[in-house]
Formats: sequence, C-alpha cells, structure tokens
Amino acid sequence: MSVWLSSNLDNAASLVHHGGELAGIVAFAASGALLSVRRDLDVVGIVLLAAATALGGGIIRDVIIGKTPPTAFTDLRLVAVAVATALVIFVWHPPARLTRWPLEVADAVGLGLFAVTGTVTAYEHGLSAPSAAMLGLTTAIGGGIIRDVLSGSVPAVLRSNEHLYAIPSLVGAAVTALLLHLGVYRPWVGLLCAALVTVVRLASLRYGWHGPRPWYTKTARRDDR
Amino acid sequence: MSVWLSSNLDNAASLVHHGGELAGIVAFAASGALLSVRRDLDVVGIVLLAAATALGGGIIRDVIIGKTPPTAFTDLRLVAVAVATALVIFVWHPPARLTRWPLEVADAVGLGLFAVTGTVTAYEHGLSAPSAAMLGLTTAIGGGIIRDVLSGSVPAVLRSNEHLYAIPSLVGAAVTALLLHLGVYRPWVGLLCAALVTVVRLASLRYGWHGPRPWYTKTARRDDR
Amino acid sequence: MSVWLSSNLDNAASLVHHGGELAGIVAFAASGALLSVRRDLDVVGIVLLAAATALGGGIIRDVIIGKTPPTAFTDLRLVAVAVATALVIFVWHPPARLTRWPLEVADAVGLGLFAVTGTVTAYEHGLSAPSAAMLGLTTAIGGGIIRDVLSGSVPAVLRSNEHLYAIPSLVGAAVTALLLHLGVYRPWVGLLCAALVTVVRLASLRYGWHGPRPWYTKTARRDDR
Repeated sequence: MSVWLSSNLDNAASLVHHGGELAGIVAFAASGALLSVRRDLDVVGIVLLAAATALGGGIIRDVIIGKTPPTAFTDLRLVAVAVATALVIFVWHPPARLTRWPLEVADAVGLGLFAVTGTVTAYEHGLSAPSAAMLGLTTAIGGGIIRDVLSGSVPAVLRSNEHLYAIPSLVGAAVTALLLHLGVYRPWVGLLCAALVTVVRLASLRYGWHGPRPWYTKTARRDDR
Repeated sequence: MSVWLSSNLDNAASLVHHGGELAGIVAFAASGALLSVRRDLDVVGIVLLAAATALGGGIIRDVIIGKTPPTAFTDLRLVAVAVATALVIFVWHPPARLTRWPLEVADAVGLGLFAVTGTVTAYEHGLSAPSAAMLGLTTAIGGGIIRDVLSGSVPAVLRSNEHLYAIPSLVGAAVTALLLHLGVYRPWVGLLCAALVTVVRLASLRYGWHGPRPWYTKTARRDDR
Repeated sequence: MSVWLSSNLDNAASLVHHGGELAGIVAFAASGALLSVRRDLDVVGIVLLAAATALGGGIIRDVIIGKTPPTAFTDLRLVAVAVATALVIFVWHPPARLTRWPLEVADAVGLGLFAVTGTVTAYEHGLSAPSAAMLGLTTAIGGGIIRDVLSGSVPAVLRSNEHLYAIPSLVGAAVTALLLHLGVYRPWVGLLCAALVTVVRLASLRYGWHGPRPWYTKTARRDDR
C-alpha cells in the first residue's frame, strides 16, 4: 500500500504533504509558546512546551504505528522549526491578556493539518482506513493534550465549557481516510479538509457551539470534589 | 511460548480470555464516562475520556511489548465497545451525586480483569512470568491513571487518602503469572483471580483499609505546597 | 556502530555505564519517594511514584528507540533497586518540611546521570549524535515530568519560578554525544559530565539563576486563568 501510495503521490504532492506537516508543527509550537507566555515561563520553558506540543502528537503516532525512532528524533529539521517558532514568539508576542485568540487560531490550524497529515502517514504505513482515521485524530489532539497536561490544565478537548474540538478533526481524518481508501485522495483536497476543520473549530468557539451535556449536572457542580 | 500457550488454551478458553478483555473495556469505559458526568463534560468529552480510560492501559501494554500497532487501533470492535458504553452512560446515568459507587465498582471490575488479561497477553507474547506480572499491573492501573490525569485529578492509585488499589491488582497479576509459569493456568481460574482483585479493592474502600503512612506527616500538610 | 562502541567500551567501562544507570535510578527513586512523603502518600503510593520516576525516563527512551520490551521490564534488578530505595526512604526520611533539599539534590544527581547514560544508550543503539543527545535530554527530564504530573504539580522543568533544569542536562547530553561522535568518549569523562550537570543545576537553584522571561508578564498574572 505504501508503494501504491508513493506512486500515487507525485513529488509535488509529497511536497504539499511535508509542507502541511511543517505548517502544523509551526502552528502547534506557536500555541504552546503562547500558552507559556500566559503562564509566565522563562525562555527554556517556552521552547520545551512549544516542542512538546508541536512534536508530541507525531511522536505518539509514530510509536503507535511502530515507526521507531519517531521522525521527530531522526529528522532534526522538525525540532529546529519548533524551536525557531518558539523563539520568534518569545521575542515578539502580544501582551499576555491578548494571547487567547492567537493561541486558539494556532491550535485550530494545527488541529486541521495534523488530522489530515496524521491520517495520510498512518495509511501510507499500511494501516486500514478506519485505523488511519483514528490515528489521525490521535495525532491531531495528542499535542494539545500534552501541552495542557504539562502546563497543569485540563485538556481543551475535555474541558466542560469547551466547544467542538475532537468532532471536526475526527470528521476531517475520516474524510481523508475515505478518499485514500477510494484512491482519489489528492493533496489539495487534504489541505481543503484541514482548512474546513480549522474553520469549524473556530466557528464553534466564536458561536459557542458544543455537544449535548448529561442531564442533572447542576448537582455535579454542587456535589463534585 | 505463544505456540505452547495457544495450544494450551483451547477455543473456549481464548473466548473466555477475549470476553474478559471486552468486559474490562466496558467496565473502564463506564468508569471514565461516570467521571465525565461528575465533571459535567459534554457528550464528546464523555466518549473521549471513556475511550482513553478503556483503551489506554492496553495501548501502553502493546507499545511496551512491541505489539504495534496496538490492538485498540487494529481491532475496531474494542473502540466500538468503549464508545457504545459511553453513550449508554450518557443517556442513562445516575444523578452526579450518586455516581461515586458505580464509578468505584466499574473501576474495580476493570482493575481485576485487566490485571489478569494483561498478564496473559504479555506472557503469550513471550515475556518472562515476572515481567508479565509487572505488565499486567501496568495494564490494570494504566487506564485509570490516564483517566485521572486527563480529568485533572491526582491518580487514585496515588491519592493520599486512597485505599488498597495497586496491591490487589499486583497480587492478581502475580498469581496469574505463576499459574502460567507452572503451566496450570486455566481461564476460569483467571476469572476467579479477577473477581478476588475486585472484591479486595472494594472491601478496602468500604472498610477504609490502606497501607502504612510515613511518620511525621502532619507537618507535610502544614508545610507542603 | 553498536559493535564499534562495545569494542570501544571495555568491560570496566560498561561496568561504569551500568553503575551510572543504577545510581541514576536510585537518585530518581529517592526524589519520587521524598515527594510522596511531602504528599503524605501511603507506602504503596511511595513505591509506585518512586518506580515511575526512576524507570519512566528509561522506558520512554527504550520505546522511542524501538527497544521493546524496555529494559525496566526485562531486567528486574532495576525495579528491585527502585523499590528498595523507596522502602529505605519510607522507613528513614527527614521530616516532611525538611525534604526539599534532599529531593532537589537527588533529582539533580539523577538528571546528570541519565542525561549521559541516556545519550550513550541511544548512540549505542545506532542513533546519530544529535538524535542521541535529544534522547539523553528526554531520558533525563522524562522521569521528573512523570513524577510531577502524577503527583499533580506542574513539571519542575516548566515551573515559572523554576531555575535552569533542561539547559544543563541538554549541554551534558550534547557534550557526551560529541565525544561519542569523535570516538573519544570515556566513561570517567561521562561521569564528569554528569557531575557538572548536577552541580550547575544545584547552583542555579541556590543562586536563583533562570532564563529570561517574556516581557509584559505582569498582565499574565492578572489576566490569566
């Protein structure tokens, strides 16, 4: 299947693919660095949190598909891109109180790109389409979960007041996997998927969309912890 | 050894084994979903936390023994079972203030089943009996640790007011490994082990058993953090 | 490369290497156990947190380089050493309010030793020098991150008031990798590297060294969370 796909993906295509991955790393690194600014970390903490956010999802993906050592440890350009992004944010960043939207936008961009590229990488590696979609979702939300757990907050994907986060990336990953399965995947379609995930995520934040809650939860607030 | 074991485990036996794993997934998924209800997550958060709790331990186990991609990513029935359980809890769950015991029971059932099935899986994969027992413990407590860390609480297994949690599952895993090593393991004995782990865990909660504490800890409460 | 290195490392050398790893496990196990004392965990929690801290970094390293099952699960002496250390701390430990410096010293010793031994292990396994250095850093800070996340605190490496932690271990790992690359690595030089990392880390704590912070962070304290 890997062979089939690499024959199917011409050079330009794989350029788009790797470009998308690098763009996702930049976006997630920026989100990690901006969160570090809010948290008042020093430059070391900023670089580490940015790198963990940007590379964490891909490392988890590679470990799960058995691609060891993960690309993040072999292709040092990925680390370089993440560190450079963190340093740019360190020297040039909005005041902490204005970091929320830049952070959300960067996170949403990374979410879309990784949902697609993670699915493609897993499928290229020989996983079935549904497994590849699950792994795309894991790649997309993994980095943000690491970022939030390390910085001591409940992951956005689970926050009770949180808006649609996993759903759009799962849909994006599923569509990508379907197109790959049908053999009609094209990189620009992938970029379109990624963009749609980003737009839906941001719209859900802007307009406060969220999934249904369990009934009777007022008591939760009263009785819990 | 895998061969020896699969010849040793007749069909009915491996049915029991896989049934036990599915039951453990249901139990841990229920515990994750019930915690999400307490935390007032929306339906997406409930499904994700349930899936992470139910599949996390097994994914860690498979990654550690080098079985990649982990079963949770290849056999999609496992995901389906976890998601279905979460949705059942979503539509039909006790009021949040009454979720504590259902959660503890579900967690204890999963703890017992995974301690045994995790050990068997690791032993089947060729690990030595002691290593298999350690991996069984890891599988059993891994899911709950992921659940608690993601939902922003200190893992039950480490909570200072916590009652026996790791000990019974370690004993269950050790007994299972010993029986496998002696070649006298039988699935129903495994189920018995699992049931005993669950019972001891619940009894330790009910009667407030816990291990000895370090001396002089009153100062800890005063001086720490 | 592995062959080259093992021919290069005579017996005495690999003794030093393994001795260094065991010493690092003792140091990190002690740090985990001392933190558990502060947190007033019972003996089970102390042993588990000590083992997770002492073995976590190496398990992550082995999973990343594809060495499965990780040494911690196959060579049970490592677990035994971690558990024994935890039990020693359990029966003989300073009052909780006096645990801070012993904890920091133990953590710094482990940090130095694992930065060096982690790099050597990764390089022996065939990774390039830069990748090996990154993996040495991961091994060195991994255990402490697991310890802090499990015990519900923000990892020391990211704490906003934290002092140089990652920098000295990265430098130690990089120097080790460079010496290996040049073929002039000698175990006693490695021990020297480890000692320097430890000293710099402790000095940075004692004298309050830390990296530069982002500008305008007062607002962060006001507006954030």
